[in-house]
Amino acid sequence: MRSGHEVMLGTRDPDATLARTEPDRFGGPPFRAWNEQVPDAKLGTFSEAAAHGEVVINATAGDGSMDALGLAGAEHLDGKILMDVANPLDFSTQPVTLFAANDDSLAERIQRAFPGARVVKTLNTMTASVMVNPGGLAGGDHHVFVSGDDPGARAEVAGFLREWFGWKNVIDLGDLTSARGAEMILPLWLRIMTGRGSPMFNFKVVTEENAAG
Amino acid sequence: MRSGHEVMLGTRDPDATLARTEPDRFGGPPFRAWNEQVPDAKLGTFSEAAAHGEVVINATAGDGSMDALGLAGAEHLDGKILMDVANPLDFSTQPVTLFAANDDSLAERIQRAFPGARVVKTLNTMTASVMVNPGGLAGGDHHVFVSGDDPGARAEVAGFLREWFGWKNVIDLGDLTSARGAEMILPLWLRIMTGRGSPMFNFKVVTEENAAG
Repeated sequence: MRSGHEVMLGTRDPDATLARTEPDRFGGPPFRAWNEQVPDAKLGTFSEAAAHGEVVINATAGDGSMDALGLAGAEHLDGKILMDVANPLDFSTQPVTLFAANDDSLAERIQRAFPGARVVKTLNTMTASVMVNPGGLAGGDHHVFVSGDDPGARAEVAGFLREWFGWKNVIDLGDLTSARGAEMILPLWLRIMTGRGSPMFNFKVVTEENAAG
Repeated sequence: MRSGHEVMLGTRDPDATLARTEPDRFGGPPFRAWNEQVPDAKLGTFSEAAAHGEVVINATAGDGSMDALGLAGAEHLDGKILMDVANPLDFSTQPVTLFAANDDSLAERIQRAFPGARVVKTLNTMTASVMVNPGGLAGGDHHVFVSGDDPGARAEVAGFLREWFGWKNVIDLGDLTSARGAEMILPLWLRIMTGRGSPMFNFKVVTEENAAG
């Protein structure tokens, strides 16, 4: 991988994933074609991927996250940082709602279900291409948030964001209840995306100190 | 007023408001002392203020908004733009939650209760001093949102924001269900405020087009 780390992607059925020939649901190439471009990325079951990682990233669809992490196995998450990038989006309603919000969050549900994991919510507030290349949008002059009950895990994740992807502006929101706020920004994010017709934007917390020019 | 408009503030009991000698709940001067600095601002009942205004602004506490607007009277709101600046904050929980969220919003509740009003949600996503003086923070390089079911009312309010306060960057989110997103940003806003120890910040929607420098 670009950042020099060994990465294994987990999926329910690796053989089925490798056999796919249709584009993925976002119109990208099927896995095998993508993997030819990124040959260092390994593919395994959810359990194998979680066992492989020193750090585990939950980038599954929000309504599949609990199942995927259950398949990953609590024993493969214990003591590890679990970066939770998912959002609890319920696409069955119009407008889209959140299936956990206000007095709960997907991140807290995951933490309760896997108390041995060090859950850190992050990267859920921008589109994937901005997550991994913040400098590609406005030179990185915008923000990413981290939330988690373990201050050390939050600091480690902030470091990963800088080191892996080049994030310059990381805001530590505090304990995991702050993930509610990070997830609850999604309805606004979706309306802005609809209005612009593009997901290529991100939020900046503008202060006197970081004002441009 | 600075913007050249006649303003009347509504309150439950104007005599009681005028009799106050203690600071307001944010530590500001009591009404009479403030009014000596801003003598053009009139004071009346909620009903008198609503009858007076061509445009009515709901800047009451969220949990008092329905009562205040009920006292204002539907007959004084019919056909008028009602700018709703309030947030449905429930301070009885820790962390603070919203008493309307996700599949509803305070703005929609107001619109349902006063179907003759042209409700536009706006200015609820930043502190009061930034609302009325966006240029005082980072030269105004940040955003305000408008939501409402009446496109003409949204456009009028966007014009008011520019004319009255100098807002340069107004994002039209669309129909009033988008006020859910604008209100649901409050939990994140509150955590950022707590972390910074100051409410002097605002969100900017960073794109390639509006990138600094």
